Amino acid sequence: MSDFPTRVHIKEEGPREGFQIESAAISTVDKIRLIDRLSDSGLRHIQVVSFVDPRRVPGMADAEAVVTGMVRCEGVSYTALWLNARGFQRAAAAGGLDLEGSLNLYASDAFLMRNQNRTPAQQYAAQPELIAMYQAAGVPVRRGFVSAAFGCNFEGDIPVARVVDRVGELLALASDHGETLGHVGLGDTMGWATPLTVKRVVGAVRDRFPDLRLSLHLHDTRGMGVANAWAGLEMGVDMFDAAVGGLGGCPFAGHKGAAGNLCTEDFVFLCDELGIETGVDLEALIDCARLAEEIVGHDLTGSVMRGGLLRRLRR
Amino acid sequence: MSDFPTRVHIKEEGPREGFQIESAAISTVDKIRLIDRLSDSGLRHIQVVSFVDPRRVPGMADAEAVVTGMVRCEGVSYTALWLNARGFQRAAAAGGLDLEGSLNLYASDAFLMRNQNRTPAQQYAAQPELIAMYQAAGVPVRRGFVSAAFGCNFEGDIPVARVVDRVGELLALASDHGETLGHVGLGDTMGWATPLTVKRVVGAVRDRFPDLRLSLHLHDTRGMGVANAWAGLEMGVDMFDAAVGGLGGCPFAGHKGAAGNLCTEDFVFLCDELGIETGVDLEALIDCARLAEEIVGHDLTGSVMRGGLLRRLRR
Repeated sequence: MSDFPTRVHIKEEGPREGFQIESAAISTVDKIRLIDRLSDSGLRHIQVVSFVDPRRVPGMADAEAVVTGMVRCEGVSYTALWLNARGFQRAAAAGGLDLEGSLNLYASDAFLMRNQNRTPAQQYAAQPELIAMYQAAGVPVRRGFVSAAFGCNFEGDIPVARVVDRVGELLALASDHGETLGHVGLGDTMGWATPLTVKRVVGAVRDRFPDLRLSLHLHDTRGMGVANAWAGLEMGVDMFDAAVGGLGGCPFAGHKGAAGNLCTEDFVFLCDELGIETGVDLEALIDCARLAEEIVGHDLTGSVMRGGLLRRLRR
Repeated sequence: MSDFPTRVHIKEEGPREGFQIESAAISTVDKIRLIDRLSDSGLRHIQVVSFVDPRRVPGMADAEAVVTGMVRCEGVSYTALWLNARGFQRAAAAGGLDLEGSLNLYASDAFLMRNQNRTPAQQYAAQPELIAMYQAAGVPVRRGFVSAAFGCNFEGDIPVARVVDRVGELLALASDHGETLGHVGLGDTMGWATPLTVKRVVGAVRDRFPDLRLSLHLHDTRGMGVANAWAGLEMGVDMFDAAVGGLGGCPFAGHKGAAGNLCTEDFVFLCDELGIETGVDLEALIDCARLAEEIVGHDLTGSVMRGGLLRRLRR
């Protein structure tokens, strides 16, 4: 077990990525209820909202109200997502958030063009402007992210070498501007990863950048979520994004109702069984998953919430 | 990838273990419809029914009618489950089945007592009678099975050494009576396994019996199904039980609606991505999963049936 981390950092994305994809409107009160409950579960990092164009994402129009209404817990980081300067300004003005600058490159040129209407060179060139914005606001640039690192609906399989190149570009962008990234995230944006590709990609990035901390953003679109997380743990990855109950869906899935992000409580169950510390009280987290299910009004895909814990059965 | 098998044998258990646990009655016609569709998917082994006491399991009272009604496909094995001589006699009389003798020991003494009201010595002593019955009927004894090999709701964690001992006892029972087991199955009867315990248990059995073929019977009760199957593949295991759509539930789960067996099509997706041959046409199998969902009248837990295939996206 020598490569396993002794503890993992989990970024809970249910309130943001999870609620964002729900077709039914989620009330501000319900969003705050879930965030507050998550704060009490032992999670140390919750991404609570995104500051995006309310005409395009009406469900996140109340981001400021959510941030104002939630109760901040000592020792928990509360972060938000934004896609441009306007979103960042709203996040900064909202107050009460742990602002963190992030750089983003794409391993799929086709997805980048479709999503941002940019070439790789244009996306690269856009990053220094972001860095300057963060620096002017006194916000540290801590995170790099490679989207579509494991495959792309518009381009197919992604060469591992391209992911390694993108990671190198992120590190160069940061250091060229006097910043040091705390970690780089690899995103399985469209649910293509398998444990084998997780091992290959993480291994290749590790080979080239042995001291870089990596995180994984995984989807369970094709049922590989937990298996991919396991492969990440085997490779020593100690940062994971996840969503309580398996919230999140997948806008790129073949059919309606596809599974969402890596399910937080199923992942915590795995870590508990492996003796890897997460800080999370699994029973409290399962209560959060049940609350999330009640709020969205349909079954979520998490398994441990129905299967039950082993802890009591061991007594 | 040197330990990965080049091909795996899948025993589809959806019609038997899956339908057996459904609370609503499944019609004989629907059972046959699913079996016939599965026969066309490329699966080479389908466990179609169980011959058990109809007073205790009314949903399997039509086992003979199912076997008579289904259309046997060249190259597909059709097997059944039974628990005693009476069940075996019914299976033999039904005709059209590939009869296979099986020996069964338990890694959990507490579960054995609860399930069969026997001590380990009594369960061991009961096996030669079974062997004699099979030999008298000219039915080969091909399979050994260790129940509760990864943990037990009534006993907790199971010592790895005990599983190794049970496997040794199965092999001894067979050879003492002139039989040679084709493989020994390890059952995660109550959904306790993690990829780590799969590796530990399979590794320990392999160490002691390097030439023995192993199979895994996995449940997804706590979301570990695919991850556990991956761990098995990494250890070179090339036989798996699975259920289309993730049918199967778990009578030992903490709450209603728990996930069922390892989901066949999610597992086939993983094998396809790894280049491991299963013989299965994944699109045809997904049609079977949709049919299974229609027949049981509620959502099943399989992911690929909603996430969609990658094959078309690669074109």
